[in-house]
Amino acid sequence: MRVAVIGTGLIGTSVALALREQGVSVWLADTDPEAGRLAVNLGAGEPLPETATADVAVIAVPPSAVAATLAAAQARGSKGLASCYTDVASVKQLPVTQARALGCDMTSYVPSHPLAGREKHGPAAARADLFLGRTWALCPAPESSEHAIAAITTLVRMCGAVPLRTDAAAHDRWVALVSHAPHLVAAAMAARLEAAPAEALDLAGQGLRDVTRIAAGDTSLWTQILAANAEPVAEVLAAVAADLAEAARMLTDGDPKSVATLLDVGQAGVARIPGKHGGAPREFAVVQVVIRDQPGELTRLFDAAGRAGVNIEDVRIEHSPGLPVGVAELSVRPAEAGPLLAALEAGGWPVRR
Amino acid sequence: MRVAVIGTGLIGTSVALALREQGVSVWLADTDPEAGRLAVNLGAGEPLPETATADVAVIAVPPSAVAATLAAAQARGSKGLASCYTDVASVKQLPVTQARALGCDMTSYVPSHPLAGREKHGPAAARADLFLGRTWALCPAPESSEHAIAAITTLVRMCGAVPLRTDAAAHDRWVALVSHAPHLVAAAMAARLEAAPAEALDLAGQGLRDVTRIAAGDTSLWTQILAANAEPVAEVLAAVAADLAEAARMLTDGDPKSVATLLDVGQAGVARIPGKHGGAPREFAVVQVVIRDQPGELTRLFDAAGRAGVNIEDVRIEHSPGLPVGVAELSVRPAEAGPLLAALEAGGWPVRR
Repeated sequence: MRVAVIGTGLIGTSVALALREQGVSVWLADTDPEAGRLAVNLGAGEPLPETATADVAVIAVPPSAVAATLAAAQARGSKGLASCYTDVASVKQLPVTQARALGCDMTSYVPSHPLAGREKHGPAAARADLFLGRTWALCPAPESSEHAIAAITTLVRMCGAVPLRTDAAAHDRWVALVSHAPHLVAAAMAARLEAAPAEALDLAGQGLRDVTRIAAGDTSLWTQILAANAEPVAEVLAAVAADLAEAARMLTDGDPKSVATLLDVGQAGVARIPGKHGGAPREFAVVQVVIRDQPGELTRLFDAAGRAGVNIEDVRIEHSPGLPVGVAELSVRPAEAGPLLAALEAGGWPVRR
Repeated sequence: MRVAVIGTGLIGTSVALALREQGVSVWLADTDPEAGRLAVNLGAGEPLPETATADVAVIAVPPSAVAATLAAAQARGSKGLASCYTDVASVKQLPVTQARALGCDMTSYVPSHPLAGREKHGPAAARADLFLGRTWALCPAPESSEHAIAAITTLVRMCGAVPLRTDAAAHDRWVALVSHAPHLVAAAMAARLEAAPAEALDLAGQGLRDVTRIAAGDTSLWTQILAANAEPVAEVLAAVAADLAEAARMLTDGDPKSVATLLDVGQAGVARIPGKHGGAPREFAVVQVVIRDQPGELTRLFDAAGRAGVNIEDVRIEHSPGLPVGVAELSVRPAEAGPLLAALEAGGWPVRR
């Protein structure tokens, strides 16, 4: 497979690095020659030759530049730059509409969007493992050929990502909720810090860093994204703003009950976010067991659970550095928590539900 | 030093673990016997003896329970539970006011607050390194004795934290901005996910996880905290709500300019948050250099910069796993970026400003 990556920013260079790890030949091009050179120096690929045809071209440019870049790529030489094309922009309806208006060949084009990123941008921030285990949305147009869809799906899998097929309209509606609105919410919280006294910032902890981290993203890119997905984003923002205004009123009125409700609903919302490598959390009871940090201890524990006829659905180990013991958190079906506790207690394990 | 920890939740047990690593004797007590037992099993200390006096007692209970717990501890036996007391609640004016109202001895009490936490709670989530490099606010009352302040400062340092002296009113105002309001902002965003279709959540990425992570915190504890710091929190929330409502309006009206402004101000706000281990970022120019992943490469690079007379203020290495090269990001005074670029380029280093 030969892949051409047009645009060697964070996403383009990361795609290139991931593909190179799989032994794929990658050609690189960027309108900023310095960015292109840095990507080449990083080992992400070779400069795009004057005349050559790739199997797949990945167009990794800002949303509003996708269609023109696609049109130029398809018009290159006699056969076009590649047999199949995809883009990686965070909105999907805009590039599709614009590509159609520009008369692009839609059969060879499969719009896509990797749900991965960093608050840093540019090729220097690229990582070969950026897409590992992450969802990568594929939004074929009605005209997209099965051949092109198969080729882009293969590319996504080679990057270590999990392809998820949807359509452009649904994609844009959902990313408004899970990506675009959260970005502005983070920015609005971070904006409060801009004029805050330094003493206040001395008290900042990890929570504030996490809530505001994505607000460090590239303003011009994000303004484009938000403008291209304005309506669904505005809907989510208006709802968040209303909840926060209401919470402020209730706190001022000395009535923290609705604040507790918002916290509860928020907790339920967080619980619905799938884990880093997919798989939504389910409703399990958790049994905590103190274990020693030594070989065979987990095997002994699982053996004890197995003999009690209890199936361990999930296990997480909490271990504080330097301690000779840790805590194993065993997730089991609620009905099995009692028998497990009894069996482990009988076996001398220190347990807690 | 002998320390009694009253309340073996996340913070109390983490304090105990951190002190044990320093060879301190720790006694543990909790109104929930299971939580107390788990902390003992984790090696965080021994059960509190019936009669004994500690040097310091750490009261690690929810904000509204601090004063009563302090009063009971000071009334214990003939000499009280300890010579000095601190608490670790996230608000400081409420426990101080209540302790004074209960007639507590304020000379031996130094209210404090470690700016550290996790979205998990309970002793199983405790970590000896929870406070490492984190700020720990000390808010002595006017009555607090120098002896008590010195003892609590020593304890804070033994936990690896950085003591920061302030007063209760300022503390509460600043944590409203950097901790309490962000918690509700995260909850309000997360609340939007509660009724969202599963397809939307399949598109969730790391950004959403970060923005909403703290919303998984304990609702009843956080309702207490927010109610106890209602006015300053409400002020921040109202401002965030107004910005978000305005952004929603502008997006709907097709005018993304004010959205760009909010993103810019947010970016400036994030940049003001000190790094994990303190030290606010300053205005430096960054020069990116591709380096090989081999011994001596950084020494060679620093040597080249030194011979050019340029002082490297900070360096970060970006390295994608599996790649034989990485990127060194050198922070230098803006005026020195040009000479550094020239010197490195002359020396054959692949650079980018």
